[in-house]
Amino acid sequence: RDRESQGMAKNTNMRWRLPLVCLLWELAMIVLFGVFVRFGAEADAHWEEEKHEMNLTSDMENDFYFRYPSFQDVHVMIFVGFGFLMTFLKRYGFGAVGFNFLLAAFGIQWALLMQGWFHSFKDGKILIGVENLINADFCVGSVCIAFGAILGKTSPIQLLVMTLFQVTLFSVNEYILLNLLHVKDAGGSMTIHTFGAYFGLTVTRILYRPNLEQSKDKQGSVYHSDLFAMIGTLYLWMYWPSFNSAISDHGDAQHRSAINTYCSLAACVLTTMAFSSMLQKKGKLDMVHIQNATLAGGVAVGTSAEMMLTPYGSLIVGSISGIVSTLGYVYFTPFLESRLHIQDTCGIHNLHAMPGLIGGIVGAITAAAATEDVYGKEGFIKAFDFTGVYQTRTPSIQGGFQAAGIVVSLLMAFAGGAIVGGILKLPIWGDAAAENCFEDGIYWEVPEDEESDVYHMHNPDKPASP
Amino acid sequence: RDRESQGMAKNTNMRWRLPLVCLLWELAMIVLFGVFVRFGAEADAHWEEEKHEMNLTSDMENDFYFRYPSFQDVHVMIFVGFGFLMTFLKRYGFGAVGFNFLLAAFGIQWALLMQGWFHSFKDGKILIGVENLINADFCVGSVCIAFGAILGKTSPIQLLVMTLFQVTLFSVNEYILLNLLHVKDAGGSMTIHTFGAYFGLTVTRILYRPNLEQSKDKQGSVYHSDLFAMIGTLYLWMYWPSFNSAISDHGDAQHRSAINTYCSLAACVLTTMAFSSMLQKKGKLDMVHIQNATLAGGVAVGTSAEMMLTPYGSLIVGSISGIVSTLGYVYFTPFLESRLHIQDTCGIHNLHAMPGLIGGIVGAITAAAATEDVYGKEGFIKAFDFTGVYQTRTPSIQGGFQAAGIVVSLLMAFAGGAIVGGILKLPIWGDAAAENCFEDGIYWEVPEDEESDVYHMHNPDKPASP
Amino acid sequence: RDRESQGMAKNTNMRWRLPLVCLLWELAMIVLFGVFVRFGAEADAHWEEEKHEMNLTSDMENDFYFRYPSFQDVHVMIFVGFGFLMTFLKRYGFGAVGFNFLLAAFGIQWALLMQGWFHSFKDGKILIGVENLINADFCVGSVCIAFGAILGKTSPIQLLVMTLFQVTLFSVNEYILLNLLHVKDAGGSMTIHTFGAYFGLTVTRILYRPNLEQSKDKQGSVYHSDLFAMIGTLYLWMYWPSFNSAISDHGDAQHRSAINTYCSLAACVLTTMAFSSMLQKKGKLDMVHIQNATLAGGVAVGTSAEMMLTPYGSLIVGSISGIVSTLGYVYFTPFLESRLHIQDTCGIHNLHAMPGLIGGIVGAITAAAATEDVYGKEGFIKAFDFTGVYQTRTPSIQGGFQAAGIVVSLLMAFAGGAIVGGILKLPIWGDAAAENCFEDGIYWEVPEDEESDVYHMHNPDKPASP
Repeated sequence: RDRESQGMAKNTNMRWRLPLVCLLWELAMIVLFGVFVRFGAEADAHWEEEKHEMNLTSDMENDFYFRYPSFQDVHVMIFVGFGFLMTFLKRYGFGAVGFNFLLAAFGIQWALLMQGWFHSFKDGKILIGVENLINADFCVGSVCIAFGAILGKTSPIQLLVMTLFQVTLFSVNEYILLNLLHVKDAGGSMTIHTFGAYFGLTVTRILYRPNLEQSKDKQGSVYHSDLFAMIGTLYLWMYWPSFNSAISDHGDAQHRSAINTYCSLAACVLTTMAFSSMLQKKGKLDMVHIQNATLAGGVAVGTSAEMMLTPYGSLIVGSISGIVSTLGYVYFTPFLESRLHIQDTCGIHNLHAMPGLIGGIVGAITAAAATEDVYGKEGFIKAFDFTGVYQTRTPSIQGGFQAAGIVVSLLMAFAGGAIVGGILKLPIWGDAAAENCFEDGIYWEVPEDEESDVYHMHNPDKPASP
Repeated sequence: RDRESQGMAKNTNMRWRLPLVCLLWELAMIVLFGVFVRFGAEADAHWEEEKHEMNLTSDMENDFYFRYPSFQDVHVMIFVGFGFLMTFLKRYGFGAVGFNFLLAAFGIQWALLMQGWFHSFKDGKILIGVENLINADFCVGSVCIAFGAILGKTSPIQLLVMTLFQVTLFSVNEYILLNLLHVKDAGGSMTIHTFGAYFGLTVTRILYRPNLEQSKDKQGSVYHSDLFAMIGTLYLWMYWPSFNSAISDHGDAQHRSAINTYCSLAACVLTTMAFSSMLQKKGKLDMVHIQNATLAGGVAVGTSAEMMLTPYGSLIVGSISGIVSTLGYVYFTPFLESRLHIQDTCGIHNLHAMPGLIGGIVGAITAAAATEDVYGKEGFIKAFDFTGVYQTRTPSIQGGFQAAGIVVSLLMAFAGGAIVGGILKLPIWGDAAAENCFEDGIYWEVPEDEESDVYHMHNPDKPASP
Repeated sequence: RDRESQGMAKNTNMRWRLPLVCLLWELAMIVLFGVFVRFGAEADAHWEEEKHEMNLTSDMENDFYFRYPSFQDVHVMIFVGFGFLMTFLKRYGFGAVGFNFLLAAFGIQWALLMQGWFHSFKDGKILIGVENLINADFCVGSVCIAFGAILGKTSPIQLLVMTLFQVTLFSVNEYILLNLLHVKDAGGSMTIHTFGAYFGLTVTRILYRPNLEQSKDKQGSVYHSDLFAMIGTLYLWMYWPSFNSAISDHGDAQHRSAINTYCSLAACVLTTMAFSSMLQKKGKLDMVHIQNATLAGGVAVGTSAEMMLTPYGSLIVGSISGIVSTLGYVYFTPFLESRLHIQDTCGIHNLHAMPGLIGGIVGAITAAAATEDVYGKEGFIKAFDFTGVYQTRTPSIQGGFQAAGIVVSLLMAFAGGAIVGGILKLPIWGDAAAENCFEDGIYWEVPEDEESDVYHMHNPDKPASP
């Protein structure tokens, strides 16, 4: 039953390594949370007194009610959306949904700390509320994206190591963009998608496996695994308006982000279907495109959704991103693999990298084109936070900084991915041999389907064992 | 691998037709959105100034916070609910979930325009907000219903053509009911379910396929396809309270709609289970009934849920609709097919048509029975919008108009369905031959399951290709 | 095709029994709802006038907007979460998701009445609103838990009978705890999990089947059934913060509950993965643990989540509960079955019983440790409702009462479970013989998968019937 008996040299036994990493890590989290993390004012029992001080008459003004529904949608995207999207492989469903679960649960704790130190640190304590939970999910989203590139080729320990470093680098990059460059990126086209995707692509490049065709037969899908993947696709697609609006300003900004994203995604489905059919000799639709490229419209308005992109602007951006993404799956992914040795299991270059870049650029243009006329005097200042030291910043300067944010994210992704890829290449993490990639049996107890099950499963007449 | 080689006359190749329709359509949408669609006041960056003018002290008063959670639930119902409900067919899961995705993404854009011109048009612009998104989803819901009748028998282009016309007719019908007749129908028993179902049934009647028994072997389910369908069922069932309350008035009306729908659906499950068991010789439950008839309770309170139907009234309506729907599956569907040549793949006559009629009638009775005593003086006026020119309308007159709304919806459905069915009968849309119905392989790249996969899927020992 | 022909003595035909129970029950519900249940003030059309009286200026103050998003998440947990979690058995997916659907729809109606009489009874009427819907779902959650112990071994009628009694006893127990002992238990560690689990374990002990190994071959999972189960797991995991915060006080308490639960669950995943790997010779992860033990962290903070448990406290509790739960699956479940004759299909002892006890104890300790300093003067009183007759209660006394709540819940569970188990042992309910347990074919019409389907399913070339 085990590949080890077939003369495999690699030791994939996780028995001591995985528990050790998980338990030490959780212990570290407990200590660090104990030292640093406390409830923010709106989640603390002192809220009653806080309300008096802030002259709030209603509990409704608690940020919980502005953001919790969006938080839950984002939460579903991270765990069910990404998890099930990756179950398309015929023999790697446990790994897809299970390892995604593991790395995300691991990452959100570290993200609460890292992002907390950068953004919610006050008097020596990190004060958390629902917005921190959303941001932690966002941060881990970038790891889920990178996971897509190396899906099926790494051990759970490698994933945890990558998560540790990627969350750290994400937080640094995010701090540079949001705080130093004063860039807007509520839906994370740059911080989440561009960074996460190019980080993952760099890692998979470093981990290049020349003999991966040995497991080529397992890189495809089966009928029902494609349906499981559609669960992931649809939840990502449906909840993306919540993703892009989750941390926008209260009021019109959240409202506008949701509408722009809704429009962009609708358009993206049509151009994806069009190009999926057009690029096949017989005009048949390809589930790979439907599962992935339909989502590019959400990525591509991640920066600009909260701006006055307008519904027709969103349709244009969504249409383009669906086309680019589908073309990527047909032409670019094979090129990346054969020429650049980038083995990208889920095609994150098409779903996150290119649409992420589009998103950053569209954001820069939309910001540069902003006028007081379109936003209103107050709305203009609020939308771009042109207050304090940024009071004198003009839209065109803001556009320049937005563009700089793309470049910084790319550099961080390449440099970080190279270093982390190098670390993951060390022969101590228990990754599988090439012929055992994309195979749940290596790290999971997989139920043995007796032939009799396959035949007689729904036929109670026949004896279970012939 | 392709049926074409077996002497099939029909050309189902979508390669140029489908892309052309999708891309031209998306281009048209971009132009029309560019000319007409703008953000409503609550999604526009001028909201800050709007707040001052309206004397609003909190962003919480933005309609986004009243309706966005319900919107997301409705969104899930349209894409996952309807999409997965229709995956019950053993070989048509891709088409069910994929074509539903395509037609809904196509339809919501057109619905934003059509409904916008009728309801949100101001100074030459359509001003949209979260309520428009909900209404667009609702409108497309009626197309998803009609899709259920023709599931597996039409090409994606036929579905897009049907969507184009049905959304148009839906919007006209909705305008007649809501604006001209001043009818209440927040959950759409008449506008969505009655109209959508009889429209779809008329279309499938026109498209009658006398040789459909040639694909009878594919019209059934397999074990796991029935479980996929239950995902759709449960999400429709769980979120139906959100559906019926999504566009009701703020406050008590939304609250009441949710409670009435919750009660009706709970009762419906019990009577469905009872009749499903009772109508089988061996008393075994039939998944077709559980997947579908349990939802009739949501349809049947679509009009009256926001009225003072009362919880016990909801239980009565839900109980009756579960019985009617289950009886429909057992006795009526075979009759419709054999006698009236109405081939109704999903049994929408039982799930949407009859319960929709019940819903319209219950709504008319509940409206006619309304009194100031039960609603309170202010509540009475608010519940039925008895203001302006409708100031003098009495409950019994309102009941009459509600009943007229049913008749108008039926007429629009029959007439519209006949015309659209005629258009879809043209031999240019690439539909499949009868023996290829209910078969994903015609329009989709379907993964080849080698026998070795079936046998050895979870058995890494054996070589992948013997 | 039917086991009956193989000389089975037991009559599992539900044809008259199941419909009779369902229809009589629904009739009783209609009558009782007609006599007792009315809309609460916030769902009644008189709300407009109510608002004036209460000096409310905004519809936002309606409890609907505070709780409806959480309600929908809880609703998903009950129907999709529990339903799909139990689909892991290879041949019992219909029963898992379908019977869960049936018993929950049955139970929520009775729970609205029972809990209504105890908590929402005013002038002879039960006045319901969204909080009642949440509580009804909670109550039924305890039945879903008990269902996990007897999954696959009981007839649907037995499940309905159990539901009837368990909802009744749940409501009595809840009344004793919340009203007489004045115990806090918003997430139901004691009322839902401890009570539900030990009730179910007692029932399954009474229903002990000595020959159950005859259906041992069906007690396992297959590859795709494990993925279906993960849908249930993830929805339970993701929405548990909503579960524990759904009925907490408005404002900080809901906010805090969600944060604590989020933290606890994240930690729980890591320790579960660690111990799952550690306890297997080859270090492979076991889906049973991932599907279940990862949820223990939500159970274990059910009482304390709304208290000032603190994020690091939550990490500690979550870590411990993941370890305890995983150890339970490996060591305790076999022991319970072989020594105590407790056949616990889903291992609810590990997922709900032990973590529920932990949750009760942690709640008692957290309450006993509360200080005015930590909670603030007003927050302290509000958090524990130390008003009226409870004005003089101190934290340490509260801790004592919390501990008493655990004992009462256990006693009610054992006594109630014994009685109900005895009733279910009567030979009139149509349960299956031991060799037919865990088999959908007994109570469901199961689609016949022809061999040709298995082979040729996705291969349109080959003729459907060879």
